[in-house]
Amino acid sequence: MSKLRFTITMSLDGFVAGPNQSEQDPLGVGGMELHQWLFPLKAFRELHGEEGGEVSASTPVVEEWFENIGASVMGRNMFGGGPGPWGENPWNGWWGEEPPFRHPVYVLTHHAREPLELTGTTFHFVTDGIESALEQAKEAAGGKDVALGGGADVAQQYLAAGLVDEMEISVVPLFLGGGARLFDNLGEGKPALEQVRAVEGSGVTHLKYRVRSA
Amino acid sequence: MSKLRFTITMSLDGFVAGPNQSEQDPLGVGGMELHQWLFPLKAFRELHGEEGGEVSASTPVVEEWFENIGASVMGRNMFGGGPGPWGENPWNGWWGEEPPFRHPVYVLTHHAREPLELTGTTFHFVTDGIESALEQAKEAAGGKDVALGGGADVAQQYLAAGLVDEMEISVVPLFLGGGARLFDNLGEGKPALEQVRAVEGSGVTHLKYRVRSA
Repeated sequence: MSKLRFTITMSLDGFVAGPNQSEQDPLGVGGMELHQWLFPLKAFRELHGEEGGEVSASTPVVEEWFENIGASVMGRNMFGGGPGPWGENPWNGWWGEEPPFRHPVYVLTHHAREPLELTGTTFHFVTDGIESALEQAKEAAGGKDVALGGGADVAQQYLAAGLVDEMEISVVPLFLGGGARLFDNLGEGKPALEQVRAVEGSGVTHLKYRVRSA
Repeated sequence: MSKLRFTITMSLDGFVAGPNQSEQDPLGVGGMELHQWLFPLKAFRELHGEEGGEVSASTPVVEEWFENIGASVMGRNMFGGGPGPWGENPWNGWWGEEPPFRHPVYVLTHHAREPLELTGTTFHFVTDGIESALEQAKEAAGGKDVALGGGADVAQQYLAAGLVDEMEISVVPLFLGGGARLFDNLGEGKPALEQVRAVEGSGVTHLKYRVRSA
């Protein structure tokens, strides 16, 4: 059965973005440090069309993130652009002309917009809630899994609704001291977790869990 | 050189005790679940004078916690008893007549009290602050390391002061949703971390870090 899977990098003190996030600085103060373990990896560089890079214990973990994924769901901030209506010539987001997804992406927003077709990836804008977005993504995934892109608020909404099946948290040795806390607002029906595996990387540890609604 | 080391078990959402902590329920709602991975271990049972138990990937980790430790520092809540003066017949704490420490323990408190000598362990009560307690503990440890016992508030004070050398966080697959958050109030000079190792246990992952003052 098609699963909703989610992978994210978190500081040891629980943040997935630093303080003072803004449209210009979506990762907040110090937030870019979260991802320093990822950038040198061959598995990451390939995905962005770059050559070379390192192979490490994190390599099979990162490769697995993208295996058997047929569609993605993400929040509007992760697509790109701030809140509010899209305007007449809406921005096409952070991801450039050839986004790395190469499958349909469902963007949660309060403001309707026609689908945006870029090379290899079409963004669909969903205004009727997280369950509708997941349903459309599963339909589009054709039996494959759906990746939940983030950010923290979107992950929290899906976790609180008991809709996440699997997640991998990459914990980095870093204190951000503030910003977007990943595991917040989980509500009363906190999901139950089962540890699947832990992988020690270089400057990161990957913790994988199965999630069950409470 | 004598190090200040600290080990604690934390829920995936960052808590070391659940909501509604009280004198009667110091671990708060759901807090006892944090330690379910530890209780069946032979290494833990032996420390409390019990026979039998399991040997697992967590065994060398737990054994290491107690190696080369010459003294401990802990907060008053962890010793036992609430805030306020000790009274005329003060309680001797959670730890029974033969506490598992078997070395001098320095208890941080605002209220002076004579040392309490139990079988194998003497508790000293320190009223002049965390640096004084650490100094006394290092002196008593005679070249061995000092264990920082907790709870969260004491760990935070030592971390914020840049006095912790090493810590091992055992992360369990559990959402507590509230309670005592371990990595809070770290102040502006957030310590820098270096990942030493990660060990995958059964229902727990042990993350060990070196800590450097910022």
